[in-house]
Amino acid sequence: MAVHTEITPAQAADRLAIRELFDAYAHCADRRDAEGQKALFTADARFAVYMSGPGTEPTYVLAGREALTPVFADLNQYEATTHFNGQSTVELVGDRATGESYTIAHHLFTADGERQIMIAALRYLDTFVKVDGAWLFAERNLILDWSETRRSTR
Amino acid sequence: MAVHTEITPAQAADRLAIRELFDAYAHCADRRDAEGQKALFTADARFAVYMSGPGTEPTYVLAGREALTPVFADLNQYEATTHFNGQSTVELVGDRATGESYTIAHHLFTADGERQIMIAALRYLDTFVKVDGAWLFAERNLILDWSETRRSTR
Amino acid sequence: MAVHTEITPAQAADRLAIRELFDAYAHCADRRDAEGQKALFTADARFAVYMSGPGTEPTYVLAGREALTPVFADLNQYEATTHFNGQSTVELVGDRATGESYTIAHHLFTADGERQIMIAALRYLDTFVKVDGAWLFAERNLILDWSETRRSTR
Repeated sequence: MAVHTEITPAQAADRLAIRELFDAYAHCADRRDAEGQKALFTADARFAVYMSGPGTEPTYVLAGREALTPVFADLNQYEATTHFNGQSTVELVGDRATGESYTIAHHLFTADGERQIMIAALRYLDTFVKVDGAWLFAERNLILDWSETRRSTR
Repeated sequence: MAVHTEITPAQAADRLAIRELFDAYAHCADRRDAEGQKALFTADARFAVYMSGPGTEPTYVLAGREALTPVFADLNQYEATTHFNGQSTVELVGDRATGESYTIAHHLFTADGERQIMIAALRYLDTFVKVDGAWLFAERNLILDWSETRRSTR
Repeated sequence: MAVHTEITPAQAADRLAIRELFDAYAHCADRRDAEGQKALFTADARFAVYMSGPGTEPTYVLAGREALTPVFADLNQYEATTHFNGQSTVELVGDRATGESYTIAHHLFTADGERQIMIAALRYLDTFVKVDGAWLFAERNLILDWSETRRSTR
């Protein structure tokens, strides 16, 4: 944990922009704005998914922003999603930053005539870069800590 | 998503006050402080509730702070509530601001002798105004993305 | 709710450090870093737990950082935990601060051959102090608003 003595107006702007980037990802996911979601990444972004929790090999790795298209399209199978964002701890180093961010993603769908919910407890280990004044994801490592699927009665 | 280059000490204060406003709403709701909750709104605030999700007609619209009384009194039927706040993305324009804020509201009650929980996945599309130095809600559009009700075993 | 007119670079640093402290507690809990978690407290910290909700007598009170060891060791019984942090409202007064912070803590375990989840809706009423430039917990009052335990199907 870092000791902070002063946060300059420029650093405050960087921190806000990075938090907004994290939150824009959720907004675009939930509103099914796949193009907006892709625009949050650098062209050569790396996206690695760890479905078996921390300390395992990645389940798959996507190279480049365009490779994200099927991942975001996959959300269309759900009737609604809520990517609910919690804490995000970010370390700034000039025009780069790293962070750990918590999301609980809720996915609603129907199976066998009944509404179901799939809940995914996620942590993102991210690298952010500032490109032409805008912060983008350069690397996302998505760790699924656990998930559950169950009936969801209205 | 905005590009931020500097956040002045005054803008930082505005952003903090708006976040505290959002969080004070939850605090007052969960502590059943209806008068405190009403004091977060302008006298002529508009509160529109969309129970059928985004893109629908409002289920009802309340005009003016006093019209909120029955809404907040309605919380008294629950044994406990937790208005858990997630991300809040705010755009400041002078003494006005707009934002999207996520809440998952948990409501505990007893029915047929068993404890039940009702969970509401909410998004608030808000307009904030600064009045005599204090930020208040001028308009809240409450969107229920989904809800569920189920037994909640201790 | 306070009215803020300016947040100085030093106050912004204090607020960030206190938020990072709150989030580091969750990180250390979920990663089972008990030594890191203890290091977030002053040597003479007080930790009071209220398992019967607000307005009751504390269930137990721990005096001093070392007394926290069994509390954090207790997390080892779980296969995974997610301490998901929501809002945190903090009032700064020089080198001291107080705050109310929301956490929903998720605990996964196996019983009778089936995966179970215990969810605890928590509020922390904290006192923070700045010691040699670093913010630490001087007092945590942990209020369990409600909890539930149920099967968690993958």
